[in-house]
Amino acid sequence: MRIEVICTGDEVLSGATINTNFSFISRQLYDAGLPVHWETTVGDDRESLLEAFRLAGARADAVIVNGGLGPTVDDLSQETAARAAGVDLALDEAWLARMENHFRLRSRVMPPNNRKQAMLPVGAEVLDNPVGTACGFAIEIGRARFFFTPGVPREMRRMIDEQVLPRILARSGTAQAVLLKRFHSFGIGESRADVLLAGVEALAPEGSVKLGFRAHYPQLETKLALRGSSQAELRERLAPVEAAVRERLGNFILAEDDQTLEGVVLAALRDAGLTIMIAEDYTGGRVATRLAVLTGASDVLRRSVAAPEVTALATAVGLDLAASGVAVDQQAAAIATTARLAARTDLALVALIEPDAGEDRTDFGGHIQIAIAHRDGVIIRRSRLVGGREWLRLGAAEMALDSLRRHLWGLPIDERIDFEKLPG
Amino acid sequence: MRIEVICTGDEVLSGATINTNFSFISRQLYDAGLPVHWETTVGDDRESLLEAFRLAGARADAVIVNGGLGPTVDDLSQETAARAAGVDLALDEAWLARMENHFRLRSRVMPPNNRKQAMLPVGAEVLDNPVGTACGFAIEIGRARFFFTPGVPREMRRMIDEQVLPRILARSGTAQAVLLKRFHSFGIGESRADVLLAGVEALAPEGSVKLGFRAHYPQLETKLALRGSSQAELRERLAPVEAAVRERLGNFILAEDDQTLEGVVLAALRDAGLTIMIAEDYTGGRVATRLAVLTGASDVLRRSVAAPEVTALATAVGLDLAASGVAVDQQAAAIATTARLAARTDLALVALIEPDAGEDRTDFGGHIQIAIAHRDGVIIRRSRLVGGREWLRLGAAEMALDSLRRHLWGLPIDERIDFEKLPG
Repeated sequence: MRIEVICTGDEVLSGATINTNFSFISRQLYDAGLPVHWETTVGDDRESLLEAFRLAGARADAVIVNGGLGPTVDDLSQETAARAAGVDLALDEAWLARMENHFRLRSRVMPPNNRKQAMLPVGAEVLDNPVGTACGFAIEIGRARFFFTPGVPREMRRMIDEQVLPRILARSGTAQAVLLKRFHSFGIGESRADVLLAGVEALAPEGSVKLGFRAHYPQLETKLALRGSSQAELRERLAPVEAAVRERLGNFILAEDDQTLEGVVLAALRDAGLTIMIAEDYTGGRVATRLAVLTGASDVLRRSVAAPEVTALATAVGLDLAASGVAVDQQAAAIATTARLAARTDLALVALIEPDAGEDRTDFGGHIQIAIAHRDGVIIRRSRLVGGREWLRLGAAEMALDSLRRHLWGLPIDERIDFEKLPG
Repeated sequence: MRIEVICTGDEVLSGATINTNFSFISRQLYDAGLPVHWETTVGDDRESLLEAFRLAGARADAVIVNGGLGPTVDDLSQETAARAAGVDLALDEAWLARMENHFRLRSRVMPPNNRKQAMLPVGAEVLDNPVGTACGFAIEIGRARFFFTPGVPREMRRMIDEQVLPRILARSGTAQAVLLKRFHSFGIGESRADVLLAGVEALAPEGSVKLGFRAHYPQLETKLALRGSSQAELRERLAPVEAAVRERLGNFILAEDDQTLEGVVLAALRDAGLTIMIAEDYTGGRVATRLAVLTGASDVLRRSVAAPEVTALATAVGLDLAASGVAVDQQAAAIATTARLAARTDLALVALIEPDAGEDRTDFGGHIQIAIAHRDGVIIRRSRLVGGREWLRLGAAEMALDSLRRHLWGLPIDERIDFEKLPG
């Protein structure tokens, strides 16, 4: 089955907008076992749109068009679709009523130019858009079924998942349903994960589960993709494979599906009713910022402090490092203990990074000390990462948050990870 | 002149990589007055590449191909270009010598598969790549001149600017050179900038300067694009227009060309030999993080503190707000004064944001107090922004850094901005 995508809009074609809609659409199709074969971007221009529709309609089995369903004069998708399909446009009364209701619910009167959004090619099938006024639709052009979707990302995403994907799957043959299970981990490289998970696919019948990885440092995403006739069947097939992955990757799994590391950390803190302060050097405050921007973080993250190096950081939390006589390998613990008392929080998380001297280069690294002070004491994690300044910053921030996750979940925080370069 | 771009690579087509290379290429061409007409993305697949080259070669005058010049078996651009042009591949001895030298300089032996990168279609013109081993080249396919560029962003960008753009300009007719002057501002909306700059284009002869805007909140980019026969001629034409823009946008211009707000702030602090501490609430520490991640920031930004609300922030810098009896509209000033002394820095920048109550919505806003404490006192800026939580965070962080820029540059920090919603 040949699938093409056509992206429309002057902002995308001129480079003013980066085309993240296309990456989303293509990834969703890829994960459903329906890779995109060809992509075309054209502007808001009748001639180009018509040419793109005709070319794709002659080559492909299914074509997803994104954008051009809005109310303004440069939104040309319906008009050009009708022309390419050789039919007229007609008012869809049901969609017009939906739009009028949409505005009424918001105590507004529908502007006259929105009426254009209910003009569809005769014979088109409506693709529901529960979150906007742009009406999606499907129609045959040439030998292909075309699926027209809105350019607004939120509306597009929902329509792709709920309306377009099931229809293309149905056309592709047996599969009527897809399921994608994702695990996010920190500390296992792709090659080790591949070894650890060898054979898990065989736990499901007849190759129905496909294992894949996506490495985006510092995290690794492990994906299990399934296609079949129903969600119930897929869940059943997935179960033994999912259990095996969870057992083999074990403590390294930090989140699943749409969860994030900072999200699970915040949830664990809230569930336990704990407050925290964060102190960090070298990271530019990124550990705290990742948590702080989440909704609900303000009840939990009560203070954060950052400084360029350890002495300044210690001073900022009220500890005179030179006078204290603390050993170098106990600095994070001492700062965490002091900081927790100063901030009057239940926990203090401290991330100290001592970078190598000299210029940035691929073997540039740094020593990392992470400490978590709690009511009954303090726990420490030491490590070394190598790979350049930005690699070190990202890895150290991830390790700090992941150590906190492990502590909150009652797991050991010092399990050896693949990225570590330990002395000797 | 019809220009097309063909992007190649399975990672881009599958959505694993977001296609930022295309946005760069298209923006550079657009700014040079050469808008892209059509874009195609295909995978690392002989048949698709050949089809894409033939279609574009039949339609366009100039085609830029990105990717597929690497040493591995899935890099197919040279091979497919030769096939589409109906010529053989031949070893380019000069490029082979360049590559061998490249490896020698790094004390490495060139792996045998890199030799493939010096195989070019017979008759191709070499496009220099001073920063990598992928050899760019140009060749006729159909009625179009094709320009092949590497997928590595750093190599691609330089080749587009230095090799491809001048050649396409030369083919497009009279213009041999382009010049793009950019001004970044905060506080002026696009429509007011348009009014303020009315008529500036007429200061250059015969419409040779084109004025444009790109609004990406919180900043506005004002662009002056020129095409002509030489850089010297363009600089001369630009001069009166540039001067007029600088005068009319005045203090609102915070940076030019590739400069950033945080970059100019850091430079001004370093030039003046000043250290700073930053304290902020509600922003999640973003004001400090923007500065902290820059090279050289560690000598200047000595401490940063963040907290979810003002009382916690004051406590974190050692001020008991309740006991101090400070009036609400003097809180930022009091915190800045205390924080500056506590951190022993030359300056303290404080950003306080008091968000509205309730859910996020488009008319959600907040009151902002910014204070800069210095050796001789403290200066204050008060404002109110409306537009949702994220809009408020971004705007407040920008306003804090921009107030610091104005202070360091000796400008008033309380000039009214367009985004402000002041009471009554």
